[in-house]
Amino acid sequence: MNLPLILVTNDDGITAPGIRHLIHAMNGLGTVVVVAPDSPQSGMGHAITLHDSLRLRPMEIDAGPQTEYSCSGTTVDCVKLALHEVLKDRKPDLIVSGVNHGSNASVNVIYSGTMSAAVEGAMQAVPSIGFSLLDSRWDADFSSLEPYLKQIARNVLDHGLPQGTCLNVNFPHADKAPYAGIKVARQALGFWKEEFEERFDPYGKPYFWMRGDYFNPDGATDTDIWALDNGYVSVVPTRFDLTAHGALAELKGRLDQQ
Amino acid sequence: MNLPLILVTNDDGITAPGIRHLIHAMNGLGTVVVVAPDSPQSGMGHAITLHDSLRLRPMEIDAGPQTEYSCSGTTVDCVKLALHEVLKDRKPDLIVSGVNHGSNASVNVIYSGTMSAAVEGAMQAVPSIGFSLLDSRWDADFSSLEPYLKQIARNVLDHGLPQGTCLNVNFPHADKAPYAGIKVARQALGFWKEEFEERFDPYGKPYFWMRGDYFNPDGATDTDIWALDNGYVSVVPTRFDLTAHGALAELKGRLDQQ
Repeated sequence: MNLPLILVTNDDGITAPGIRHLIHAMNGLGTVVVVAPDSPQSGMGHAITLHDSLRLRPMEIDAGPQTEYSCSGTTVDCVKLALHEVLKDRKPDLIVSGVNHGSNASVNVIYSGTMSAAVEGAMQAVPSIGFSLLDSRWDADFSSLEPYLKQIARNVLDHGLPQGTCLNVNFPHADKAPYAGIKVARQALGFWKEEFEERFDPYGKPYFWMRGDYFNPDGATDTDIWALDNGYVSVVPTRFDLTAHGALAELKGRLDQQ
Repeated sequence: MNLPLILVTNDDGITAPGIRHLIHAMNGLGTVVVVAPDSPQSGMGHAITLHDSLRLRPMEIDAGPQTEYSCSGTTVDCVKLALHEVLKDRKPDLIVSGVNHGSNASVNVIYSGTMSAAVEGAMQAVPSIGFSLLDSRWDADFSSLEPYLKQIARNVLDHGLPQGTCLNVNFPHADKAPYAGIKVARQALGFWKEEFEERFDPYGKPYFWMRGDYFNPDGATDTDIWALDNGYVSVVPTRFDLTAHGALAELKGRLDQQ
């Protein structure tokens, strides 16, 4: 039997400790090909490079069995280049993205480069998972993650995922390890409220730095935020159909016209 | 009675003909404030600027009653700067984005800077609409849009939108005008298949240009693509809760663990 083919990417860049941990874990499950950005792409959402060309370079970063390439584009560019140029006719059995240095729980999924890879994979009908750790430091402690990375990836390799969905997996900060277990949850309906700090350049002209605080008015116990607060690894099935199906009937009554 | 406060943005840049048409139409409905990118941001998805500062400059582009600012960041940066810095304590009654030069129907919504403004607005609980025309040329013909822009914006000003949703409005190419009417629809579940053209720079090193073809295996008659193909203005209620609620039970059975 052939080993499963696993594509690995991220948005913190190919040298980030998070992706090195993920590559190491996936080497135990299949044949690993890495196509990841050559520089950080955090907060880039589902951005793609339409008006510039892309570079792809073979890389050797550490002494593993994986094959690696760095790409000059965004995380979504990496997935598209991997599927259509690097892997050509071989369709991967799994796409994994991360491990992100920082949370992609709740509405962070919308801004997330890490999860954009998983959403892109789902659109291309490849089972896909984004992994993130609630610690944005470069030297975050990833040491408790490996058994969960393998277990969740193995489960998806064995059973696939419902059509049109990928998984958004978040790990509590290492100070909550050993983790309480795994909880499948829904995306908490929180939001970011930004503040802008105005500064002045040496020529007297203003510029702004954005910073934000996260608010979560969604206090229910079936959310990813609740699971993470209580020490669980959270798993949110995430879809690329953004239609608010529940709103169709009301809006048809208000707007349909011919 | 105070006039409604309407925030206008886009992703093609503040000088694009599409946003100039939208500003002109909105001036008939309320007090218009424009905060839009100083350069094109197409394909940037829900990208935000985390590691750089932002510039905001008052602009006067044409002789309308609107107040305008250009911003050095992405479309989402524009919305956040507008809500939290430009408008301060005045919450807008409506955010409109576009009119985009090019389609944001079907899965294009995922890559769309135009729609990222509307999704960001929905997260901030402001009724929001993204408008797009199925013609990506700079000199596209927007002349048939004005009554629809006003009608849909007026409907949302009068009645609001269901919680957590915004509208993704697409207009057929001008060669289908006069339009057949308005159809509320769901997002067609199509996908892009990319090809990469390899070229070599003057130093012999390879680089790639991405191009894509859109495929729509979703032949149902309740989709945005069907509506547009048949000459209707399509309106898709779009949500920022990406949870695949229908997949929760199966995945709980497979993955929950404590």
